[in-house]
Amino acid sequence: MNILWVLAHPEQRSLNGSLMSDALGALDELGYAYQVSDLYAMKWKAVLDADDFGGRPPGGERLFVGAEQERAYAAGELSADIRAEIEKLLWADVLVLQFPLWWFGPPAILKGWFDRVLVQGLGFGVKAPDGHTRRYGDGGLAGKRALAVTSVGARSSGFGPRGIHGHVDEVLFPLLHGTFWYTGMAPLKPFVAYGADRHDAADYARTSAALRERLRALPGEVPLSYRPEAGGEYDGELVLNPGLAPGREGLGVHER
Amino acid sequence: MNILWVLAHPEQRSLNGSLMSDALGALDELGYAYQVSDLYAMKWKAVLDADDFGGRPPGGERLFVGAEQERAYAAGELSADIRAEIEKLLWADVLVLQFPLWWFGPPAILKGWFDRVLVQGLGFGVKAPDGHTRRYGDGGLAGKRALAVTSVGARSSGFGPRGIHGHVDEVLFPLLHGTFWYTGMAPLKPFVAYGADRHDAADYARTSAALRERLRALPGEVPLSYRPEAGGEYDGELVLNPGLAPGREGLGVHER
Repeated sequence: MNILWVLAHPEQRSLNGSLMSDALGALDELGYAYQVSDLYAMKWKAVLDADDFGGRPPGGERLFVGAEQERAYAAGELSADIRAEIEKLLWADVLVLQFPLWWFGPPAILKGWFDRVLVQGLGFGVKAPDGHTRRYGDGGLAGKRALAVTSVGARSSGFGPRGIHGHVDEVLFPLLHGTFWYTGMAPLKPFVAYGADRHDAADYARTSAALRERLRALPGEVPLSYRPEAGGEYDGELVLNPGLAPGREGLGVHER
Repeated sequence: MNILWVLAHPEQRSLNGSLMSDALGALDELGYAYQVSDLYAMKWKAVLDADDFGGRPPGGERLFVGAEQERAYAAGELSADIRAEIEKLLWADVLVLQFPLWWFGPPAILKGWFDRVLVQGLGFGVKAPDGHTRRYGDGGLAGKRALAVTSVGARSSGFGPRGIHGHVDEVLFPLLHGTFWYTGMAPLKPFVAYGADRHDAADYARTSAALRERLRALPGEVPLSYRPEAGGEYDGELVLNPGLAPGREGLGVHER
């Protein structure tokens, strides 16, 4: 099993940095192959711009981001840093993204990894022979699985089904469903370290052990059961059929 | 009425660039004062790091992001680009964030504006005299309102209450509730331009007119009715009281 581990934290001695160190040790023991993209250590460029494609389209024409990504990807003309990440991603069976939850989402450096690496023609806009767009359970990254590992300052109760911060699976919907599942990757249940600001040595030992146990069990872990777009559960307007989750609304209806 | 308009798009001739140009013309006509932060034009630094605080804590000590933000903010030692944005934000009555929806969230350059500008002591970790933390309807930015203006390639049906992309108000929950409301800003209903990739001249005219109409009516517009943390609707574990939205779960329960 090949794992790409992407870390986004500015401090190696943080809770996240320590957890990754323990986790990589566990991967060694388990005999899984892995590569690491430590985005801060790499000084990863967060901002998508025309330099990703060797400068603007010729003649100062208007930049259409998706079209330019697809052209540059097909022509092998994406910038070298993006090409390297795509190569790691295609090699991986499981993508792990590890980050502190900032403003209820990934830090900018990681958001920019999605913006720049998941290019049109790979992450979105992938066409099937019959012309339909392959996404939500299908697409350029189909067959892979993805795991979010995140830390939050809050206690778990506030992230529960009626907690003030929102249920964590729904707060992370843009990542789990809108990014992983959209591109074809099957999302695993996120690993969340609660009370990150108040972790003492005993808390840390428990959190690290729990993460290592998740990794040990990874080969057999069953992903979240989001509905595929192509499975007949949505109509032509991409609305869920009335017989499924009848009478219900909200993000939860997209899970079986 | 003072407006801070923050734009995150790499191409001035994009749909977003044109809409902002029309919108600023409308603000002129309406006589509202405004400032613009065009993040790409400013070459805004997206990535939070120790340079935001004049380098690491002394002696190579471990960086604690929140604590370091709060110290540097209180001491006037945040980097000049952050201080300038905070000054604009404190001046504004209404914050407008305009961006294309990439991976169901803001582009990295805008995410980095949250990460770097909404510092501890202003955006979070603001204490009341009795020691409780002011947030969700209260906090350093209380009294302001905030409007997200975004564009998506998809049609509106896919972003409806049972649409495959998720209901747009819930997909944007990390921004509307987790960022605006958390910091004390009352979120307005987001303005979404659907079918952005297929906008012809007539579509554009309609979208621009709708946005200008929103701006005209802005003084009297009533925000979304999220529940405040301090209003007695949540218990000590930050879980919504059982008598409110009884039997329901999901992000929708946090709106009255």
